[in-house]
Amino acid sequence: MSITDRLFKLRSQMAALGVDACIITSADPHLSEYPADHWKFREWISGFTGSAGTVVVTNEEAGLWTDSRYFLQAEEELEDSTIDLHKMGEVDVLDYKEWLAKVLPSGSVVGVNGKTMTLGELRLLSKKLKSADIRLDARLFLEEDVWEGRTSIPEDGIFELGIEYTGLSRTDKVKAVREEMKKQGATHYIVTTLDEVAWFLNFRGQDVEFNPVFHAYVVISESQVSLFIDPHKLTSAIGKQLSKEDVKIFLYDDFYEFIKDMPPLAKVLIDPARCNSIVYNFLPTQSTKIETTSIITDLKARKNPVEIENFRKALVKDGVAMVNFLHWLDTSIGKETITEYTAAEKLTAYRAEQENYHGNSFNTISGYAANGAIVHYAVQEETAATLQARGLYLVDSGGQYNEGTTDITRTVALGDLTNEEKIDYTLVLKGHIGLDMAVYPEGTRGVHLDVLARQAMWKHGINYGHGTGHGIGHFLCVHEGPQSIRPQDNGVEIVQGMISSNEPGIYKSGKHGIRLENLILTCEDQETPFGRFLKFETLTLCPFDTRAIDVNQLDEQELNWLNNYHQKVYDQLSPLLKPDVKTWLKARTQKV
Amino acid sequence: MSITDRLFKLRSQMAALGVDACIITSADPHLSEYPADHWKFREWISGFTGSAGTVVVTNEEAGLWTDSRYFLQAEEELEDSTIDLHKMGEVDVLDYKEWLAKVLPSGSVVGVNGKTMTLGELRLLSKKLKSADIRLDARLFLEEDVWEGRTSIPEDGIFELGIEYTGLSRTDKVKAVREEMKKQGATHYIVTTLDEVAWFLNFRGQDVEFNPVFHAYVVISESQVSLFIDPHKLTSAIGKQLSKEDVKIFLYDDFYEFIKDMPPLAKVLIDPARCNSIVYNFLPTQSTKIETTSIITDLKARKNPVEIENFRKALVKDGVAMVNFLHWLDTSIGKETITEYTAAEKLTAYRAEQENYHGNSFNTISGYAANGAIVHYAVQEETAATLQARGLYLVDSGGQYNEGTTDITRTVALGDLTNEEKIDYTLVLKGHIGLDMAVYPEGTRGVHLDVLARQAMWKHGINYGHGTGHGIGHFLCVHEGPQSIRPQDNGVEIVQGMISSNEPGIYKSGKHGIRLENLILTCEDQETPFGRFLKFETLTLCPFDTRAIDVNQLDEQELNWLNNYHQKVYDQLSPLLKPDVKTWLKARTQKV
Repeated sequence: MSITDRLFKLRSQMAALGVDACIITSADPHLSEYPADHWKFREWISGFTGSAGTVVVTNEEAGLWTDSRYFLQAEEELEDSTIDLHKMGEVDVLDYKEWLAKVLPSGSVVGVNGKTMTLGELRLLSKKLKSADIRLDARLFLEEDVWEGRTSIPEDGIFELGIEYTGLSRTDKVKAVREEMKKQGATHYIVTTLDEVAWFLNFRGQDVEFNPVFHAYVVISESQVSLFIDPHKLTSAIGKQLSKEDVKIFLYDDFYEFIKDMPPLAKVLIDPARCNSIVYNFLPTQSTKIETTSIITDLKARKNPVEIENFRKALVKDGVAMVNFLHWLDTSIGKETITEYTAAEKLTAYRAEQENYHGNSFNTISGYAANGAIVHYAVQEETAATLQARGLYLVDSGGQYNEGTTDITRTVALGDLTNEEKIDYTLVLKGHIGLDMAVYPEGTRGVHLDVLARQAMWKHGINYGHGTGHGIGHFLCVHEGPQSIRPQDNGVEIVQGMISSNEPGIYKSGKHGIRLENLILTCEDQETPFGRFLKFETLTLCPFDTRAIDVNQLDEQELNWLNNYHQKVYDQLSPLLKPDVKTWLKARTQKV
Repeated sequence: MSITDRLFKLRSQMAALGVDACIITSADPHLSEYPADHWKFREWISGFTGSAGTVVVTNEEAGLWTDSRYFLQAEEELEDSTIDLHKMGEVDVLDYKEWLAKVLPSGSVVGVNGKTMTLGELRLLSKKLKSADIRLDARLFLEEDVWEGRTSIPEDGIFELGIEYTGLSRTDKVKAVREEMKKQGATHYIVTTLDEVAWFLNFRGQDVEFNPVFHAYVVISESQVSLFIDPHKLTSAIGKQLSKEDVKIFLYDDFYEFIKDMPPLAKVLIDPARCNSIVYNFLPTQSTKIETTSIITDLKARKNPVEIENFRKALVKDGVAMVNFLHWLDTSIGKETITEYTAAEKLTAYRAEQENYHGNSFNTISGYAANGAIVHYAVQEETAATLQARGLYLVDSGGQYNEGTTDITRTVALGDLTNEEKIDYTLVLKGHIGLDMAVYPEGTRGVHLDVLARQAMWKHGINYGHGTGHGIGHFLCVHEGPQSIRPQDNGVEIVQGMISSNEPGIYKSGKHGIRLENLILTCEDQETPFGRFLKFETLTLCPFDTRAIDVNQLDEQELNWLNNYHQKVYDQLSPLLKPDVKTWLKARTQKV
């Protein structure tokens, strides 16, 4: 079925339902970063396979709104589709809300599946359309009638992650959540994001790539935990255990009926940024809505001591895989043909050698020379560049282990470097060290620390467009909230137990890209009459490429940091390496 | 008349008007930092003379709400007044809004003079009271009936500040404001803060201490500039000139009638944070209110080239006065009796020797040893400490000159220092230099840069409770918005032409206080493919005390900064100094 045929069928259905335009987002009802195929209606209707993008279809026109990461890909994939590309962020490009308000006559009806939109976003949309006298129908489920060959929701089983990994039993987590509900005056708390469900229940699944989650909802009340899940996913042992713990099982599909039937006077805690709009709209009208950050978001961001110890183990394994890979790259470059694609495959193979490995935590970014400057470069086998024995190679990757999720970027010299490449590498390293060495009082937010990673390169008139740090899940999602180290303030304080990335970069179009990323744990520095001070502890174990550093540009503190870090990397990883790799690591962690 | 008698009279009047409680703020209708005596009703009714505080009186109780700067002073001044002190910021202390909502029965009426409260604050108050079913009357002018011996509004004259100082004629300013009004779609723009009126009209006055402002309002429309002012303030020459420029003069007292009578369909630009609430409430109901930052606030924050050149001249004069003072202090300490009070007087005398001096820009903070740790220490002749030839002395002061307003803090060693004093001095200096050397892309806000002044001391578990930088007026107010360098984000970008203070500090109660403050100008660093980058240029000229520095703690960049700065100070000031002072400065700016 061609895209134009699909659009024809969609428009027929729209006409039958009296809808003048429809919005198709890329989200699933759990607002996942990686939705299962079952939810990829936007991809089916448009042919566009990028992860971020919204399609809008009217009777006359169809458009895709996406950001600069996907302009090239979208142009190719939309060819012959009759769908126009709207380049978000470019001058004079309206967003899809403004566009709808402009092109539709007043009195029109716009439809959207409210399950695929956060409550916050729906409110903005509704306000915009209302101002143009356009009605919004947020319960339009066109995919149910239009989509031919739709796959079903994955039925893969789940497994329990033992307390030796989670550090807290389900019962303890229920208790902690209920305590917080009480503080907030909530009688019910609705959990809809898959990583929150997985963390809360100490289960992991395999429904989607990269994230070990499974499809389910949870509603926690003062007296009951209700789990909405496909029963095929549960072994009888798990089912019995849950029933012992008073966790009541419902069918996945019964979730929305359940919340419709909640007690009318319930006080429901709901996170407008982490919950789809239908959930909210199905709640009893009389019920009190307590809109705040999801309780589990805050609980799981503060890793407990057992989770932290496991993270350390995960990062030893990941370090061994990375060092094996970098050793192989260093000794093979110029001798055998290596492409960006085969390099990424090799790295995955090294990770797969590690115990309790459950795949990668995201699609490896493997970019040689100018390709390294494309921040979200998605390497493809057919178009991958061949690595040469010169210049810089950037590799951003991560693994999923029972012990934790990893995320690391290294940029390495494959041979001779230009002076500019060395200066830029050194500036990125200075920023990386600057943030890593930060000490900060309680109450500090990411917005306060971001400059420490940028100040060195700003003095050279260089900057990068992405954030410096994000949270990471414990054997969950590689991008996890709520903290964020970037110039945009989201109001979240960096607190003890949070694990964040530290990843400044420099990207010079047509030349090279450099990013250096470690994971850093927030821990106590000291308590003084001026309050409690926090600092970072570096968790990632993998050398930086000293051949790419202009040592003269590092001050004494930075040199000490680098040498101490390399000593730690060698001490912790060398006992686990084969002799030749060990020798290589010894050389690569030599004092500078 | 005792305070209790005053309160009795107030309560009688409240009863006559059917009001159950009244709020008396410390603000004048222009929301000035330094109101004239005519507006100090809160001081008259309570006896409390501090600059910040709100009095609330009910039939049974009376309370003063103030912050930690004034706890001691308020306790003393409120003795025998029957007014309770509510210590703002302490645990379990309600703010006055919450307190009113708690103590008053529903159905009560609370009154306030809406002229002494910003629109923003009044809205918060109104919302809080409404939630407790309490009515707010914002047009209660009790001071008119109760206050005996009230002084009148100052009638001092105004004078024109020539274009050689302002760089822009009144006509050009009118044009610039109208252009911005057009962009914002405003037909009228109401200017109520005194420094905005003064800057806009190129006049200065002498109605209050420290700020060269005069009492007036301005309303700018597309075709007219209306000035509301006591005609005694104008010479006939000024009156004629204004009439030539089509500036229409009205009586000061006619302002509120004028805005009541504005065209019903006017589109009025008004700044809710810089305008009293009555102004807003008097506007015609049908008129459109464009609530945004006052146009003049933004215009005057970006100093023009003539203003900047004048600032440089002001800072040479101020530097000469400071160096004369520090030389005198250095050569007199231990030989004659010097108190914190006489030292401050001496400094004022040195400033007064400078041309075009119009008094100080604020009350000099002159604190020896432990008194230096009291951030807003207000020295009094009777209680001033005597300076000894040991330890640290902090002096924060500024002058008003035709060429600009100054604000400088130096902390100096009066003799031997402890190791702790030296370490702390060096940490403050490192912070000061860290911010001064910052380079930052356009779009950067104060919240992003603040950490640069704190990172060194945070590593020692030390912090300070005040902001790092504020804007400063051009021969106007020493504290001027809108930019602010501090952990709290106010959303304002640091742009070219802004002049800010750079004033980190360390305060150890019972020991010592250190603050080092220069004025810094934002100018262009460079433009690159990554955008336009800005940097600071140091304007203040006065040496730091190298005897208080632990040189080993400064890195090479910091040492270079210090030596270059001292060279510049010597080069610019020495030609203007007497021989002995010049010799002293040579020694004090010696390379370290």
